[in-house]
Amino acid sequence: MERREQILTIAGHLFSQRGYHATSMRELAKHLNLQGGSLYAHITSKEELLLEVVRQAAERFLKVLEGLKGDPVAKLKGLVRGHLEVIAQELPRATVFFHEWKHLSPPLLEEAKALRHRYEEGVQRVIAEGVEKGVFQVENLRLATLFVLSALNWTYQWYRKDGPLPLEVLAETYAGMLLRALGVAASPIGEHPEEGGEDG
Amino acid sequence: MERREQILTIAGHLFSQRGYHATSMRELAKHLNLQGGSLYAHITSKEELLLEVVRQAAERFLKVLEGLKGDPVAKLKGLVRGHLEVIAQELPRATVFFHEWKHLSPPLLEEAKALRHRYEEGVQRVIAEGVEKGVFQVENLRLATLFVLSALNWTYQWYRKDGPLPLEVLAETYAGMLLRALGVAASPIGEHPEEGGEDG
Repeated sequence: MERREQILTIAGHLFSQRGYHATSMRELAKHLNLQGGSLYAHITSKEELLLEVVRQAAERFLKVLEGLKGDPVAKLKGLVRGHLEVIAQELPRATVFFHEWKHLSPPLLEEAKALRHRYEEGVQRVIAEGVEKGVFQVENLRLATLFVLSALNWTYQWYRKDGPLPLEVLAETYAGMLLRALGVAASPIGEHPEEGGEDG
Repeated sequence: MERREQILTIAGHLFSQRGYHATSMRELAKHLNLQGGSLYAHITSKEELLLEVVRQAAERFLKVLEGLKGDPVAKLKGLVRGHLEVIAQELPRATVFFHEWKHLSPPLLEEAKALRHRYEEGVQRVIAEGVEKGVFQVENLRLATLFVLSALNWTYQWYRKDGPLPLEVLAETYAGMLLRALGVAASPIGEHPEEGGEDG
């Protein structure tokens, strides 16, 4: 079991750095100090490995959703913090979850899509709840969800946990911008100021 | 010249779909109905091709910046629209500009980084101008820039120009959310309501 975990970690690194297609089983075995053949005692195929890494990443992201508590603003803040934490702590797996999954073929591809979809739906529910409770104001729920995921996902491209920017600062700043984007403000956004203001 | 353009287009497609490392010159030649050797009459190396695709993408993105006019809100709207247009029209090149450039090695890598940096700086100037003119309110200019770029860049993952969502709708909705994220609202965001409100 520990060996398998090690294989998955190295596979995640190689897939995310060089790309799935450019990573050979031979190379993977070399990084693990294994004979090419003995790798197959632990796994059945390179593609199965790819799906397994996607599964591990999905599990981490889905756990973020499960842990959300409080009002819509608190939930969104928790989502931002948790999502960025997964990226910072599990960069190779997150990269595979964001990218390399596309190289899977059916039926494994369908499982990866379903896992990604489940996470996206969870994020959408957080936003939808905020809209229902009158806390968030969005024009288009689906686009608002993609917008939130976009802003968060792209951090895998540039954020490094050992860099100068603490995760707390990134999470707080991003949460602030996302909440404003979702129409959370002390005063209503008022795109149509002519539609009656309060006089008193 | 036309042949070269064709080579760059096919290379962009292959690099973006399979990844740079997984694309061989042999495969590229096959897609172009060329003998492997005669490809070298047009280009010197696979890496040079990669940089050339990055250059083409950078040119398109930088042209968006040059065309921006008007006040900070108009400029941001133009930026959103133009950036999304490049992604929609030049998806393979944009994907290479966002991703595959990392596989370059010095000194070509430095040129790619410089091009990407130039674009990011241009986006940052648009936001900085809005802040200086009191139209945008951001806590952290650098993070606000990365936030804007993140929201826009990620669309290459899911937006397709022949899909059900018109580019105009996407651009308008995203611009609306980004402007709110940048603190553009009829009323000030007022994160510190205790610091004196108006009484009359």
